[in-house]
Amino acid sequence: MDRIDFRSDTVSWPTPAMREAMASARVGDDVYGEDPTVNELEALAAARVGKEAGLFVSSGTMGNLAAVLAHAGRGDEAILGEDSHVFCWEAGGMAALGGVMPHPLPTDAIGRMAPGAVEDAIRWDDPHVARSRLVLLENSYGGKHGYPLPPEYLASIAAVARRYGLALHMDGARLFNAAVAQNIDAAELTRHVDSVTFCLSKGLCAPVGSVLCGSADFIHHARRARKILGGGMRQAGILAAAGIVALNEMIERLADDHAHARLLAEGLAQLPGARVNVDMVRTNMVFFELADDVALSSEQVADRLRETANVWLGTNGPRGFRAVTHYWIDANDVRVLLSGLESVLAQS
Amino acid sequence: MDRIDFRSDTVSWPTPAMREAMASARVGDDVYGEDPTVNELEALAAARVGKEAGLFVSSGTMGNLAAVLAHAGRGDEAILGEDSHVFCWEAGGMAALGGVMPHPLPTDAIGRMAPGAVEDAIRWDDPHVARSRLVLLENSYGGKHGYPLPPEYLASIAAVARRYGLALHMDGARLFNAAVAQNIDAAELTRHVDSVTFCLSKGLCAPVGSVLCGSADFIHHARRARKILGGGMRQAGILAAAGIVALNEMIERLADDHAHARLLAEGLAQLPGARVNVDMVRTNMVFFELADDVALSSEQVADRLRETANVWLGTNGPRGFRAVTHYWIDANDVRVLLSGLESVLAQS
Amino acid sequence: MDRIDFRSDTVSWPTPAMREAMASARVGDDVYGEDPTVNELEALAAARVGKEAGLFVSSGTMGNLAAVLAHAGRGDEAILGEDSHVFCWEAGGMAALGGVMPHPLPTDAIGRMAPGAVEDAIRWDDPHVARSRLVLLENSYGGKHGYPLPPEYLASIAAVARRYGLALHMDGARLFNAAVAQNIDAAELTRHVDSVTFCLSKGLCAPVGSVLCGSADFIHHARRARKILGGGMRQAGILAAAGIVALNEMIERLADDHAHARLLAEGLAQLPGARVNVDMVRTNMVFFELADDVALSSEQVADRLRETANVWLGTNGPRGFRAVTHYWIDANDVRVLLSGLESVLAQS
Amino acid sequence: MDRIDFRSDTVSWPTPAMREAMASARVGDDVYGEDPTVNELEALAAARVGKEAGLFVSSGTMGNLAAVLAHAGRGDEAILGEDSHVFCWEAGGMAALGGVMPHPLPTDAIGRMAPGAVEDAIRWDDPHVARSRLVLLENSYGGKHGYPLPPEYLASIAAVARRYGLALHMDGARLFNAAVAQNIDAAELTRHVDSVTFCLSKGLCAPVGSVLCGSADFIHHARRARKILGGGMRQAGILAAAGIVALNEMIERLADDHAHARLLAEGLAQLPGARVNVDMVRTNMVFFELADDVALSSEQVADRLRETANVWLGTNGPRGFRAVTHYWIDANDVRVLLSGLESVLAQS
Repeated sequence: MDRIDFRSDTVSWPTPAMREAMASARVGDDVYGEDPTVNELEALAAARVGKEAGLFVSSGTMGNLAAVLAHAGRGDEAILGEDSHVFCWEAGGMAALGGVMPHPLPTDAIGRMAPGAVEDAIRWDDPHVARSRLVLLENSYGGKHGYPLPPEYLASIAAVARRYGLALHMDGARLFNAAVAQNIDAAELTRHVDSVTFCLSKGLCAPVGSVLCGSADFIHHARRARKILGGGMRQAGILAAAGIVALNEMIERLADDHAHARLLAEGLAQLPGARVNVDMVRTNMVFFELADDVALSSEQVADRLRETANVWLGTNGPRGFRAVTHYWIDANDVRVLLSGLESVLAQS
Repeated sequence: MDRIDFRSDTVSWPTPAMREAMASARVGDDVYGEDPTVNELEALAAARVGKEAGLFVSSGTMGNLAAVLAHAGRGDEAILGEDSHVFCWEAGGMAALGGVMPHPLPTDAIGRMAPGAVEDAIRWDDPHVARSRLVLLENSYGGKHGYPLPPEYLASIAAVARRYGLALHMDGARLFNAAVAQNIDAAELTRHVDSVTFCLSKGLCAPVGSVLCGSADFIHHARRARKILGGGMRQAGILAAAGIVALNEMIERLADDHAHARLLAEGLAQLPGARVNVDMVRTNMVFFELADDVALSSEQVADRLRETANVWLGTNGPRGFRAVTHYWIDANDVRVLLSGLESVLAQS
Repeated sequence: MDRIDFRSDTVSWPTPAMREAMASARVGDDVYGEDPTVNELEALAAARVGKEAGLFVSSGTMGNLAAVLAHAGRGDEAILGEDSHVFCWEAGGMAALGGVMPHPLPTDAIGRMAPGAVEDAIRWDDPHVARSRLVLLENSYGGKHGYPLPPEYLASIAAVARRYGLALHMDGARLFNAAVAQNIDAAELTRHVDSVTFCLSKGLCAPVGSVLCGSADFIHHARRARKILGGGMRQAGILAAAGIVALNEMIERLADDHAHARLLAEGLAQLPGARVNVDMVRTNMVFFELADDVALSSEQVADRLRETANVWLGTNGPRGFRAVTHYWIDANDVRVLLSGLESVLAQS
Repeated sequence: MDRIDFRSDTVSWPTPAMREAMASARVGDDVYGEDPTVNELEALAAARVGKEAGLFVSSGTMGNLAAVLAHAGRGDEAILGEDSHVFCWEAGGMAALGGVMPHPLPTDAIGRMAPGAVEDAIRWDDPHVARSRLVLLENSYGGKHGYPLPPEYLASIAAVARRYGLALHMDGARLFNAAVAQNIDAAELTRHVDSVTFCLSKGLCAPVGSVLCGSADFIHHARRARKILGGGMRQAGILAAAGIVALNEMIERLADDHAHARLLAEGLAQLPGARVNVDMVRTNMVFFELADDVALSSEQVADRLRETANVWLGTNGPRGFRAVTHYWIDANDVRVLLSGLESVLAQS
C-alpha cells in the first residue's frame, strides 16, 4: 500500500493470490444459480460455520439486513446491543426498509447484553407492543474494542431466545478474529445462532463481500431478500474467487494481526502522552486516547502523523483514536506509528 | 360506574353533560371539512395550546403516529425516552408503518432525558446513519408515575432540537394533568414544542378522541397522514361535542383527581403492608408495592380486593400496583380502597 | 338537513333513533374489550355476514388497511381492480404503510376482473417477483356506478384464489346496497370471501364507523393492526350504539334509496341536456353527463343548482356528475333536482 | 463459453481485456470514496450520459431502487409501464421497502405510455390519494422485444413530468442498445430524464454492476440509499475496472449483436414451424413462437435443442421463446440455433 493505514481493516487490499484467483475464475450467471465459483464459496462458507447453506452478499450490512428481513416481518421487534453495528451504523435499515422495530439494550464492558435484560425485553402477544421475534448478537464486538465474546455468553443468550421461540442472528463481520483470538473453531461460536453474517473483506482481505449462512430454508428466504435489495449479482464468481482464498488462506494468519495490535498497545502504554487499556486488546483493534496534558486534539495529532510519517489513524472523538491492524500492517509499521506518535507528542 | 375502577383513567365514562352535548350535536361530513362541531373543537384545542391548528384523531396513538409521519420521512430517526409511551406501548408503529428509526435514551427518576445525551444522539449527514429528524417528549411522564415535567426541562431540550434543526413533538396524553399539577397554563408547556397530542378521553372523560395541534402547514400534512391511517371519520361531531365539554369544563377539576391520588398515597404510606413514594405522586397516578413480608402476589391482592370490595386495581409486576384517579373516583372511593386493602393484607 | 345533498351518502346524518341510542349507550373501555355495546355490535355484524368475529373500526379505509395488514406481509402482492376504491382512493396505504405491492387489473363495464386475468397475475415463488397473497374485491363497485356484483362472480374469483392459496378480502363499503339490490342476504355475497369490511355510515346513516369481519384468528391479527394504526378507541360504544341501529333498522330501507336513484335516472333520461345510462343504475348512485350542446361545464351547472335550488351535486370531470341517494333524500328532493336542473340548462 | 447460450445477455462472461483490467486494478476503500478506479468509472459513466455524477451499484435493480428511494418518499406514487421491468421483475421493492405506490399504465406495441394517460394519472394534493412524484421510463423496452424508444417519446413524457413537477427516471438497463440501434448518442436519450441507471453487465459484458447517474445532489441522496440497502462495497475497483473496459470498448460493437439478432429473426421467418415479427427486432432480443401445428411445447423444444445442439433458449410461456444475442454469440452460433431448431421441429 502507498501508506501505512491503520484507520480500519476495511482498507485492506486483495492479496496477490486473490488477484490471481479472480483473473482466472470460472464464472456463470449467479442470478440463475449457475456461477460455479459462487456456489463453491457458499458451500465452503456454510461448512466453515456449521450451517446448511450460504449466500454471498455484497456487504456485511446487506447480510445483516437480509437476515432481519428473512427472520422478521413488518411490526416485529429485534433486541440488540445499543452500541452494536446494526443499531448504530447500518443507517436504520431494519426500521426504514423492513418495518422492524429495534429494541436496544445496554452492553457491558466487553459488549454483552445481560441475559436477564434480554428476557425482560421480550414482549408478550399484546396489540400495544411489537412482537419480539429476533435477537441480534455481534462477535467480535466492535463497539467495545473488538472484544471476542466467548461461547458461554452466546449460549446464555441462545437459551433465552430458544425458550421464547425467538430467532438468533450473529453479525460476525469479524467472526474469525473472534474465533482465532479464543483459539477455537468459528463453528463453536456459530452453533449457538440460527444465522450468521461474516465478512470476506476486512481482515480476510477479499475486495468485496460477505456470506450469510443458516438453514437451507432460511437461505431461501434470504436469497429473496437479497434480490429485492438489488444485491443479485451476475458473474459474481470474480469476487467469490477472492473469497475462497480468504477462507482457505487468510484465517489463521489473523493471529498475526492480533499480535501486532497487542504490540501496538504495549508500545502505547509506554508513551507518556497516550492512554490505553491493554487488557481490552484481544483482536485487531486498539482504542487509545491522548493524556490530559497533551495540548493537541486527536484530529491534529492524526494530521501530523499523516504528514510526518505517512501513518493514517482513525480518530474517535476529540481525544481518542482507533487503530486497526490487518494483512498490510506488519511489526515495523507498528514501530513507525509508535515512533511517529512519540515525535508528534514531543513537539506539542 | 358499576365498580370502583382505579385501573386507569381510560375507563372513565362520559359525563352527563357530554351525553347531552353528543345527543344534540350539529354534524357534517368531516372528511369534507364540513362538520361544524369538529371544526369548533379543533379551533378550541389549538387555542388552548397556543398553536395555529388542530386535528381531531381517534386516539393518542394515532395523534403521535400522524405527528411522526408528518415530521419525519422513511429512514429518519426519532430520539425519545426508553420508557416513553411511544417507544413502549404504541406497537412500534413509527418503525413498522413509517420506516422511522427510534433512538431511545435513558430517562431520570422523573422522566427527563439529559439534554447532553440528546445532543450526543444527534447524527450528522453520513450514509452510515439514519438522519436525526425529531425529538419526542412526553408530559406528564407515564413511565415515571405520571410526573409533570416543568417548562424549564422542555426549554432545555427545545434548545438542543432547535440548534440542530430537529422537530419537537410532545405526547401530551395527560398534558392538562401536567399543567394543573404545576398550576400553569398548558400553553406554557406546549410553547416549547412544534406539535403536541393530547387526549380528550382519560382524565377529561370524553368517550373517544385526542387532538393533534401544530402549525397550519404541519396540520395539513398530519391530515393526510390521518387519512392514510384510516382515521378520517364522517359525522365525527358527535364525538367532538364531548371533546368541547372536556376542554371547557373538565380541566380545572383535574386538581381533584390529583388531591385524591395524594390522599391515596398518604393512606398507603400508613399501611404496614404497602410501600409508596408519596413524593412522586404529583398528578393522578399512584404506583405502590407490597411490603416484603406480604405473602400474597399483587395479582392475588387485586383479585381479593375486587371480590371483597368491588375495587379494581391494575397490577405492575408480581409485587406492584398502579392506581389512577379520575372523575368517577371520589374521596370515599379512596377510603374504600384503603380499608379494603387493609383487610386483604390483614388476612394474608 | 339544511340542504338537498346528493354529493355522497357519506353526508348522511344520524337518524333520531341513532341519537337516542347514542345518548343512552352503555359503554366501557373497548381497548380492554369491556365495552358492551361495541361487543354487541361486533357480534351482530359478524352474524349478519356469516363470519366468526367482527372488529369495529373508524372508517372503511381503516377496515381495508387492517385487512391487508392482517392478510399480507411486507413484500407480498395484492391483486385488485384498477378503478377500485382501495387502489384509487385510500392514499396508497397498502404500499406506503404496509409494504404490500398492488397489482391492479382492468375491470369490465360493471366492475369485474376476469378470473383468467386474476389467475395470470398470480406469481410463482421466484425472487424476482412479489409473492401473490391476496385478492381484493369490491361490492357494490363504486368505480362502475355502484353496480352490485352477483354471487356467481364472487364465486369465480374465489375459486381462483383458493386454487392458489390466496386470501380474499371484500371492500363492502356498500355491501348492503349490493345485497338489497339483488334481493339476497348479504351473507350470500360474503360467504365467498375470507374477510369483509362494510360501512355503518353512508347509506346506513351511522355517524362514524365500519366493521371488519372474518375468522376469529384473522380478527385477532386485525385487532393488532387496528391498534398500531391508532384505531383503538375507548368508550366507542357511543358510536357502536348507532351502528346497531344501522344494522337493525336501516338495511331494508336501502331499497327506497335505489328507487329514488332509479327515479332520478329516469327523469334525467327525459332531460334533453343530460345523458344517462339508466341500466347502470342498480343501487343508490347515478352518474350522468351533460349533452354535447350544453355550453356550461359541470362545475358551473353544479354552482347554479346550489344557488338556485339549494341542491348539491358532485362533479365528475368537466362534463359529468355523480348523484347519490340516501336516507335524507326523498322523492320530492329528486323532483327538485330535476326541475332545478331543467331550469339551469334552459337558461344556458 | 461451454455452450451456446441465448437465454439472456446476462449470461455474458467478462472479456479477456476485462479480466486483465481487473487483475491489475488500482483499488481503495470505496465506502471512504477512495477507490480510484470506482471514481474513474463513475466520472466516465456520468459523462457518457451527460449527467453531473454517477454511482456504481451492484445491479440494475439496485440502481432503480436507489433512484426511487432518492426521488420519492413514503406515500409518494410512481407512474410506470405495466409491463416494465421495475413493475414486474424487481420484486415489488418500491412498495415493499420504500413505501412508494406504483401506478402502472398500459404501454403500446413498442412500450410507450400515452403522454395523455400519464397526465391523467397524476394526482392532485388530496389526502385520499398518494402524491404523484415520479415517472419511470425504460429504454430499450424489455417487455416489448427490447424495442429502442426514440428521443421524441422521451421528450413528450418529460414535458408532462416537468409541467407537474414530477421527477423522471429511466431504467436504461440496455440504454446503449437503444442508442446504438438508433445510431445516436446515449446522451440524446438521457437528456430528457433526471436520472438513469444502465448496466455494465448484459451486452457490455462486465461481470457485475450498473451505474446510476444524475445531478450531484441526487447522487448524494442515492449514495445514502445504496448504503442502507447494503450496496456499499469496499475495493469495488476490481469490478469497476471491468466497467471501464465496458464503456470504452464494448458499446459500438452492440451493433454486431443487433445484426445477429436480425439474422436470427430472418432465419426464423423462413422456418415453417416458427412465427416471428421481424420488424420488432431492433436491438438484441428476438421473441418468437411455435406455429400452431407444432406438437411440442416450448419447454420440450428447448430441452431437445439443449441436448442435440448445446443451444440454450429461454422459454416465454407454453409456446414462446426469447433469444438474446451478445458478445459470446456469433453468426455461426445463430446458424447452429437455426439448423438445430429445424431438426427438432422436423422430428416432431
